[in-house]
Amino acid sequence: MSDSQRLGEFDLIRRFFVRDTCTGSARRDGYGGDDPASGVALGQGDDCALLTPTPGWQLAVSVDTSLADVHFPADAPPEAIGHRALAVNLSDLAAMGASPRWYVLALTLPDIDTDWLEGFARGLHRLADHSGIRLVGGDVTRGSLSITITVHGEVPAQTALRRDGAGLDELIVVTGPVGGAHGGLRAWQSGERDDTDPLLHAYLWPSPALNAGEALRGLATSAIDVSDGVVADLAHICRASGVGARIDVEALPLYPGLAERFDEQTARQAALTGGDDYVLLCTLPEHALARAEAHLAAHDCTLTVIGRTVAEPGIHGVPTEHVGWQHFDVEPDDRSATGATS
Amino acid sequence: MSDSQRLGEFDLIRRFFVRDTCTGSARRDGYGGDDPASGVALGQGDDCALLTPTPGWQLAVSVDTSLADVHFPADAPPEAIGHRALAVNLSDLAAMGASPRWYVLALTLPDIDTDWLEGFARGLHRLADHSGIRLVGGDVTRGSLSITITVHGEVPAQTALRRDGAGLDELIVVTGPVGGAHGGLRAWQSGERDDTDPLLHAYLWPSPALNAGEALRGLATSAIDVSDGVVADLAHICRASGVGARIDVEALPLYPGLAERFDEQTARQAALTGGDDYVLLCTLPEHALARAEAHLAAHDCTLTVIGRTVAEPGIHGVPTEHVGWQHFDVEPDDRSATGATS
Repeated sequence: MSDSQRLGEFDLIRRFFVRDTCTGSARRDGYGGDDPASGVALGQGDDCALLTPTPGWQLAVSVDTSLADVHFPADAPPEAIGHRALAVNLSDLAAMGASPRWYVLALTLPDIDTDWLEGFARGLHRLADHSGIRLVGGDVTRGSLSITITVHGEVPAQTALRRDGAGLDELIVVTGPVGGAHGGLRAWQSGERDDTDPLLHAYLWPSPALNAGEALRGLATSAIDVSDGVVADLAHICRASGVGARIDVEALPLYPGLAERFDEQTARQAALTGGDDYVLLCTLPEHALARAEAHLAAHDCTLTVIGRTVAEPGIHGVPTEHVGWQHFDVEPDDRSATGATS
Repeated sequence: MSDSQRLGEFDLIRRFFVRDTCTGSARRDGYGGDDPASGVALGQGDDCALLTPTPGWQLAVSVDTSLADVHFPADAPPEAIGHRALAVNLSDLAAMGASPRWYVLALTLPDIDTDWLEGFARGLHRLADHSGIRLVGGDVTRGSLSITITVHGEVPAQTALRRDGAGLDELIVVTGPVGGAHGGLRAWQSGERDDTDPLLHAYLWPSPALNAGEALRGLATSAIDVSDGVVADLAHICRASGVGARIDVEALPLYPGLAERFDEQTARQAALTGGDDYVLLCTLPEHALARAEAHLAAHDCTLTVIGRTVAEPGIHGVPTEHVGWQHFDVEPDDRSATGATS
């Protein structure tokens, strides 16, 4: 009898996703126990998880779906798929300055491949442990491979980093180098499979900037994570805040190895529009820069100033028109809204 | 230019899922505003929604995926698909006795069919308004039709209805008739398309028992919603609580029209194992019955006693072995765990 015939949904959840360390007093039936220290009054196994929010903090919630061969290669290492699916969600918490608390997982699988599931769960759990976030519920269905994660973080009331707070004549900064993930995607597409390669690693194993987000609470006036590319994500901040931006393309920190692997034009374009980098793009007043840098230094993280906010709408200083990647085509209205100009 | 070429992801969200009534000061760019009365400090359009939990209450969280042609017919009315996808999630809140607050939607679409999306959104929003739950975030991707919703409710600390609280010699009750959804599924499969048909209506337009769940806080010792069927769901309670159950099959309230449409054996089997009914199945001590009935009467809802908890493990009184529906095959261990005996 094959695994796919033997494993029921409940067994699958019990075997791969309910852990002693995760649910405290987990029982063989997969009915989750409590763990007050993590704010989990009741874990997996009931109709809902029961969570205890921290008094005086706000709850930050985000959902993201990762589809095979749309958001990641279906034949990527399962550990990387598990890691990456959670990482892109954690990045949304980082962009709000929120501290990770709990997540739920909706997993759609074409079949039950226990080796694949073990790898997937290992990648997922390792990043969850590293980030201090707990799996508190899930759903497993059968269909095309798809991973939807809803993350929950907490942030002291009124301190969240939003997109709509950028003021005029503020600095635009990034918390790390960009373009690596796009370079890695191209490397994957050209057949590279050694994920110790720095670019491929940047693509398959993104590192959400959780420490940077928390450190910038109360200092950055706006923030977003770079998922669609620097130009497109900066445009989101500009639209929400009612400002424009001028960026210095030469100042963009290129991911290590990018300039060596590609010609300068390709490397620069990867950094501007590649996406999937998951560093934070923020604005802050000039007087806050030194303090922000000091906060971030404690986490071995640096800030690079890449431009300034301006009154004139649009993104200025970009040599050619660039817009970020969307799941569906961008209509002309939206394209012009990014206002990319030479 | 077709809609599918013209509509970007942001446009789609703006057009169908960001509503003035939903986001307060929503702007044309889809950047969500606040609505303190609903606990929404920041709605759609940022990296995360920011929510303000109610002090002293616990957060109840659940996620469910609905796949086309697995959980609903792909050619069902789009209004019903939107309604049903949210209803099955709200039912999990009902089963905890939680009051609905916020939800996020991950929608995977094969293409952009604006007529379909309008219907889907109408069904979704109508039930959300009726239930007092707010859409605070989402993700739209392109692939096989799939709807994953994460719901958030709140319940005063220590009052949630869990699965693990059933005691010995308690009454087993249901909050409404069962078997209707399974009858409706069979009607759909046999070509019935008039959803004013009571059975088809029960299947396509389930009504989560939110009022019943709230009314039973502090009275029921355990609760679950009937999604897998009475026998399978009662087995979940028994396993979590460490009790057995004896049910009186004759006492099961059949959905109106079920007995007329099918032979008695089929109708009874639909009621026992059909699933998708989304009434609540609860246990409570006999002395609490009158008070529970009084609470529920205020919501035009009745309780029907269908059995008692017993010491001997397993579900007793069921004529033939029945187990609930699972996405994957049930392994022998699980089947025996339900302990269905004659």
